[in-house]
Amino acid sequence: MTTKEEFHTEPAVPGDKMEGLSLLTDLYQLTMAQGYWKSGRANTQAVFHVFYRNQPFNGGYAICAGLEPALEWLHALRFTKSDTDYLATLKGNDGKPLFDPAFLEYLLKMGPLSLDVDAVPEGTVVFPFEPLVRVKGPILQAQLVETALLCMINFGTLVATKAARICASCLGEPVLEFGFRRAQGLDGALTASRASYIGGCAATSNVLAGKRYGIPVAGTHAHSWVQSFPSQQEAFDQWAKTAPNNCVLLVDTYDTITGVREAIKTAKKLVATGYKFAGIRLDSGDLAWLSIEARKLLDAAGFPDAKIFASNDLDEHLVTTLKHQGAAINMWGIGTKLVTCNDQPALGGVYKLAATMEEGETTWKPCIKLSEMAIKVSNPGVLNTRRWIVDGLFAGDVIWDECMKPEKLWRAVDPADATRTKDMPEPNGKNIVAEDLLVPIFVKGKLVYTPPPLSEVRERTLKQLSMLSPSNKRLINPHSYVVGLEDSLHKRKSELIIKEREVVRKLRAAAEEEEKKK
Amino acid sequence: MTTKEEFHTEPAVPGDKMEGLSLLTDLYQLTMAQGYWKSGRANTQAVFHVFYRNQPFNGGYAICAGLEPALEWLHALRFTKSDTDYLATLKGNDGKPLFDPAFLEYLLKMGPLSLDVDAVPEGTVVFPFEPLVRVKGPILQAQLVETALLCMINFGTLVATKAARICASCLGEPVLEFGFRRAQGLDGALTASRASYIGGCAATSNVLAGKRYGIPVAGTHAHSWVQSFPSQQEAFDQWAKTAPNNCVLLVDTYDTITGVREAIKTAKKLVATGYKFAGIRLDSGDLAWLSIEARKLLDAAGFPDAKIFASNDLDEHLVTTLKHQGAAINMWGIGTKLVTCNDQPALGGVYKLAATMEEGETTWKPCIKLSEMAIKVSNPGVLNTRRWIVDGLFAGDVIWDECMKPEKLWRAVDPADATRTKDMPEPNGKNIVAEDLLVPIFVKGKLVYTPPPLSEVRERTLKQLSMLSPSNKRLINPHSYVVGLEDSLHKRKSELIIKEREVVRKLRAAAEEEEKKK
Repeated sequence: MTTKEEFHTEPAVPGDKMEGLSLLTDLYQLTMAQGYWKSGRANTQAVFHVFYRNQPFNGGYAICAGLEPALEWLHALRFTKSDTDYLATLKGNDGKPLFDPAFLEYLLKMGPLSLDVDAVPEGTVVFPFEPLVRVKGPILQAQLVETALLCMINFGTLVATKAARICASCLGEPVLEFGFRRAQGLDGALTASRASYIGGCAATSNVLAGKRYGIPVAGTHAHSWVQSFPSQQEAFDQWAKTAPNNCVLLVDTYDTITGVREAIKTAKKLVATGYKFAGIRLDSGDLAWLSIEARKLLDAAGFPDAKIFASNDLDEHLVTTLKHQGAAINMWGIGTKLVTCNDQPALGGVYKLAATMEEGETTWKPCIKLSEMAIKVSNPGVLNTRRWIVDGLFAGDVIWDECMKPEKLWRAVDPADATRTKDMPEPNGKNIVAEDLLVPIFVKGKLVYTPPPLSEVRERTLKQLSMLSPSNKRLINPHSYVVGLEDSLHKRKSELIIKEREVVRKLRAAAEEEEKKK
Repeated sequence: MTTKEEFHTEPAVPGDKMEGLSLLTDLYQLTMAQGYWKSGRANTQAVFHVFYRNQPFNGGYAICAGLEPALEWLHALRFTKSDTDYLATLKGNDGKPLFDPAFLEYLLKMGPLSLDVDAVPEGTVVFPFEPLVRVKGPILQAQLVETALLCMINFGTLVATKAARICASCLGEPVLEFGFRRAQGLDGALTASRASYIGGCAATSNVLAGKRYGIPVAGTHAHSWVQSFPSQQEAFDQWAKTAPNNCVLLVDTYDTITGVREAIKTAKKLVATGYKFAGIRLDSGDLAWLSIEARKLLDAAGFPDAKIFASNDLDEHLVTTLKHQGAAINMWGIGTKLVTCNDQPALGGVYKLAATMEEGETTWKPCIKLSEMAIKVSNPGVLNTRRWIVDGLFAGDVIWDECMKPEKLWRAVDPADATRTKDMPEPNGKNIVAEDLLVPIFVKGKLVYTPPPLSEVRERTLKQLSMLSPSNKRLINPHSYVVGLEDSLHKRKSELIIKEREVVRKLRAAAEEEEKKK
């Protein structure tokens, strides 16, 4: 058990705490909430799942992130008089209020949420269609939290995944996240710094992220430092004097190779005063060629330990080609393409209703949303994901309905091709283990989860990735990891699809009949 | 004159005000600040410009945005004991503190900033290399504000521009910003809603953005509303009952055409109770074909005024093809691709030092940063942009140095090809006007600017765009708008480049000579 005061980190958004942010929602969540309330169904029970359909960046996995800020927001959610006063000003198309004053009164008196929330811990390897967050409780409340929850989980997971890919391309060398200036808003920056660290980055340039989340911070100096002095040599010498224990010199303000030579002169003076010369930074030009030339000059001058930092619109693909070309780079500064996830700036996670239970009933009624493609039809039920670990490696996941637990055999059905099935092995408590991914976060609105410190989340990511086969981690054309629907869930889903399509067929036939009569 | 309390809107970030956010900066800004302080140059005067080099989205213009949140942040910037306590914990590579306690004491006692800040008002059409913000004052302070300023101006301008492009593709039909759930962080969402409205959107789904910025809010209902009822017809009927004055029915939960037919049944009952049927929303499938079929059904049923909303990963290019196909869509819900600027999620604006003045001196010393490409070399001086308006249309911009105002003739030199020049016409107070784009925001740290209400900013955007030639506004392959360097500025820049290249040449020659000797 924990309370808000015991959280390890401050909220993901700048400014004050998460209070007063209950209107961080789409308007239709509030009009639907009013709809449920007006039609006497505010307390109809509902189950929603947050999941995504396609692996980001055409990769083989994602790293789940964003839960801690999400739970802080959920925990603080409470409508204020200021909120309802604002809602009272909104008008419908007849100029009359959109919201009934009695409903606004209901919101004001609702108090804290009473939802059950289960979620996959941050730093977990996840796959398409697996529930990342499961929200269960009064449909009115469950609906209200959709938008902000999606925003936080979508973006956190996206960036953590991108960071993991970039770190993989750097083959264990430190990756520094330098993206603040190009991030999508101030807390776009903070969220990206946090998620980048979860994904494996070693440090961030964002000082507030360092302070709030305990992430190591790093940085060199800017071109302006060099420009502001009469000569580059003087600028370097002054930098060594003012930052002797953090002396990385940016060498490309005027000409890179000349910069390296002047950096070496400064380095010799610095070392003479008893300090270590940390290295140089390249920020433009042909990084492969320049780094190799710079390495030669540094080595020849007696600085084999001086590091070469590189930055300039890098991502995992550019790093891969630099490695391929034998670039002599030791530290990677990654900015824009990491924090904005340049090649896919949104995850596309959705929040779908999967089951309902009217007041007074005791069993869940599963439900689906149809789509032209069977694989896009949402999964019905109260879902969880069971993951098999065989000999320390992830061996397959089965999405299952907690109300239909199989007695013995766990058979996974490929959701894209039902003729492909896999019978999961019986856990033996030794080299075969199976565990469910969701853990309880809120029980009837009460927080029952203590988010681990961020450094532990980062360790979890690294550990999880070590349990995933290299073929699933490949940056391009990865092998697909097995994620199946549990056999009875698959059967129920198929029945529901057939039933709903039958309803549609009958309605179409009746309508066509009617039109013929005219 | 205004004070913080008189601002029209709340800050762009959730939570409380902009206080306590002074560490929203890159580490190197603080280590450089310490460097300037240690080398006795904290009060060296500096001029920095925020500008970008390439038009976003391969378009012909950008809409400037992000100033109001930026000025609020600047206004609130003040280091706290908690900030300096954190900075005191940071260590260099020798394990000793990175920051001198006396420097941290200096930061703490520094108080509010004393900078001059000039900026282009939000909602202004801007072009590459034009200073969007100019910061002038003590180099230590001017350096500290770089990162957050860039973040806010870059993202605001990017989204406002994307919104303007999307609105242009919709040919005047209302565009609703629906992107919250896919935005990059909570205030990525708020910032995007604000900038989308500046760029011309009619409304947002984000309720907090509505409350804070006075933006109209809009929304329909979700698939979950339909799924939660035993039948779609019942769900529609209930929606009409609970939201009679905002009745837009989402018709694609099971089958779109069937959905339209059921919506019409509900609409007939709604109209019988004296309300107006607002319309339907399509959210998947072939929007062109479905909208045309839906229009026929609605018209035939006596609802020619019912609107057809469409959404589903749209952007300006998809909207253009839908229009081309004759889609019968009246209202556009644009989400992910607007708020994340999918095809270019970062603007790439930079903050470059352009001039310095040591204490005791009285003239600015212009400076540049070299690059292999002349066009990428930063412009030196204390810059502004003068815009000519001829017969009510923008006729060309000239970037000029306020310390080198031409006596009479304003000659613009193409920065990419100095043989191309244009002599700007003499303003006559009638059909030929020339005006500078920068307006004073802070004078010696004192706020002297009142941000206009957001609706006025949006009006400004629309007015500005109406003054730009259609050929410059074309979505693909637009005609380039004339932006030149004022002749004397161009000459000085060329001289500086030659001078710096000569320094580099001499240094290289000397180094090569030295290496030969070995």
